[in-house]
Amino acid sequence: MAKNHQTLLKNIHIGQKALFTFNTFLKKTNYKQYFILCDQNTLKHCLPLLLANCPTLKKADIFEIESGESSKSLEVATQIWQCLIDQNAGKDTLIINLGGGVVCDLGAFCASVYKRGIDFVNVPTSLLAMADASVGSKTALDLNGIKNIIGTFYDAKAVFIDPIFLFTLPNREIKNGLAEMVKMALIGNKALWQTLNNANTSLDEKIIQQAVQIKSKIVLKDPFDKGIRQALNYGHSIGHAIEALYSDNKFPILHGEAVVMGMIIENHIAHQKKLLNKTSLLEVNNYLIQNFKPKPIALSDIEKCIAYLQHDKKNKGNKLKFSLLNKIGQCKIQVEVNASQIKKALLYYTKEVK
Amino acid sequence: MAKNHQTLLKNIHIGQKALFTFNTFLKKTNYKQYFILCDQNTLKHCLPLLLANCPTLKKADIFEIESGESSKSLEVATQIWQCLIDQNAGKDTLIINLGGGVVCDLGAFCASVYKRGIDFVNVPTSLLAMADASVGSKTALDLNGIKNIIGTFYDAKAVFIDPIFLFTLPNREIKNGLAEMVKMALIGNKALWQTLNNANTSLDEKIIQQAVQIKSKIVLKDPFDKGIRQALNYGHSIGHAIEALYSDNKFPILHGEAVVMGMIIENHIAHQKKLLNKTSLLEVNNYLIQNFKPKPIALSDIEKCIAYLQHDKKNKGNKLKFSLLNKIGQCKIQVEVNASQIKKALLYYTKEVK
Repeated sequence: MAKNHQTLLKNIHIGQKALFTFNTFLKKTNYKQYFILCDQNTLKHCLPLLLANCPTLKKADIFEIESGESSKSLEVATQIWQCLIDQNAGKDTLIINLGGGVVCDLGAFCASVYKRGIDFVNVPTSLLAMADASVGSKTALDLNGIKNIIGTFYDAKAVFIDPIFLFTLPNREIKNGLAEMVKMALIGNKALWQTLNNANTSLDEKIIQQAVQIKSKIVLKDPFDKGIRQALNYGHSIGHAIEALYSDNKFPILHGEAVVMGMIIENHIAHQKKLLNKTSLLEVNNYLIQNFKPKPIALSDIEKCIAYLQHDKKNKGNKLKFSLLNKIGQCKIQVEVNASQIKKALLYYTKEVK
Repeated sequence: MAKNHQTLLKNIHIGQKALFTFNTFLKKTNYKQYFILCDQNTLKHCLPLLLANCPTLKKADIFEIESGESSKSLEVATQIWQCLIDQNAGKDTLIINLGGGVVCDLGAFCASVYKRGIDFVNVPTSLLAMADASVGSKTALDLNGIKNIIGTFYDAKAVFIDPIFLFTLPNREIKNGLAEMVKMALIGNKALWQTLNNANTSLDEKIIQQAVQIKSKIVLKDPFDKGIRQALNYGHSIGHAIEALYSDNKFPILHGEAVVMGMIIENHIAHQKKLLNKTSLLEVNNYLIQNFKPKPIALSDIEKCIAYLQHDKKNKGNKLKFSLLNKIGQCKIQVEVNASQIKKALLYYTKEVK
């Protein structure tokens, strides 16, 4: 676990020279084997960019997984471990996660338990992973539809965030990442919220840097997720339920899309609990609805959503506790919420979003 | 990770009052759910003893696994996680591993990654687990015959070692544990070696305590297995290979039995490398052969054994490095060993043990 904010940020390289820095990292370190984890998309669009910038990796083994959340499974993890065994990978092996949140979470988990831990780096290629998933030492797998129920706390050796990969992304993926950045701003940085809220703002590495800084500051204060880090769950209690609900869908919802829906609904709960005033509720929810155009929720799904929440890993014992905004730029954790408040907020959502 | 030897030992309770101490621990702590992991044998022979001493646990969920190494698998781990999910187990759940090395390794691994870590305690019931597996923060699973290839470093909240369970064990199981205690003595405590070597010594909690102390001292110096802790691998490089080799067997070899064979063979390698003198080699190997009556190795298995070693997780990169005795009570780690030395030692074994 990193010792202070500077140490933590020191290992996160953001900017147009990040891949160059990665190449220097590879030259300085002394790994015997390299193992690149990518999905169908990053194999095609990102791997050539990585190899062109980091020639050391031309001898790396490549492991390709199917794109999408369904790869964050024990079955795929087992295939990766078997591949490491087959390649006789020792403790001197470096795993390189080249992809979005799924690749980063999965690769980090596999690294954290193979031979009780080998090194890995993240090279996030989606905006979501750049701003969120690749930073903060949480690794994860899903089990039978329960998101992130299996995982470890395990640090990446380094994270290389190069905005060059953003050009490989479709617009839907950019929005997916933007959702988490909006979340960071809402819980920790009102100025960043105002920047994002400004129609003239264009996405650049400085904005990514600010989002990463909010996250890394929070992570540092609470590396093992026992207190303030729960602020990062804002939008996620409901968001994860929605994600699970639509995971069987032929066109599954993206994580950021679910989080947007989660934020809108949780903001209403915060308003019910007199944490968030009417003006802020309208300001945030109008922005989210206009900019993200979230999907409607069927009335018939409301009860399913509440049932799912009983299993959400953030809830200690049987009580439902959410992280809610108490104003723009500030979050209150461990707020007890009951089923009737959730139902009310979901009904509000079905009226606002059609 | 415990901060010093006293802290580490403070959480290890050894003696006839250990179960009583466990009951006090349960009263003082505030877990919402209890989950006892046991195998067919400990369910029958040990669970009644545990429940009689710790009435708090009468409301615990019981999860029974099949006895034997084959349960240390991802399949069984998945069943345990699913059961935790089904029981809605939160972060306030305590897992109680009631069993030998398999139960302790498996239960600890499951606890270490469920919701990124929930608490567990070990209540070892075999001599092997009392003296070895239940102490030292290593958790493990096997994958496709490769032992302990998946695992984490994760501390038990406490360990309760009650010799009452020794009465539930057949003689073969006592010998199984004695092997690890002999190992501890050989690498770290000549006086304990002399005690064990004395035909009049009978097994008691003081001897177990000494073995636990040797182990916990070593673990403390090197919690993440990067240096001196490798001394604990003495007898295990070859031992694990033998265990894997005979794992498909209808009557599989026990861990301690394989370690005895491993020690005999590795002692010969140590002698070849001029680390262990002839007198000590004879003293130790004669004792091991006479007291443990190890199984013979078929000549045809020698090459298989060497092939397996290529996969052994303790070897960095491609070089084979063993922990070998350089005298009784002292171990040298990271000794480079080649295939021809191993072969010679295996041939020596086939002549000595028929």
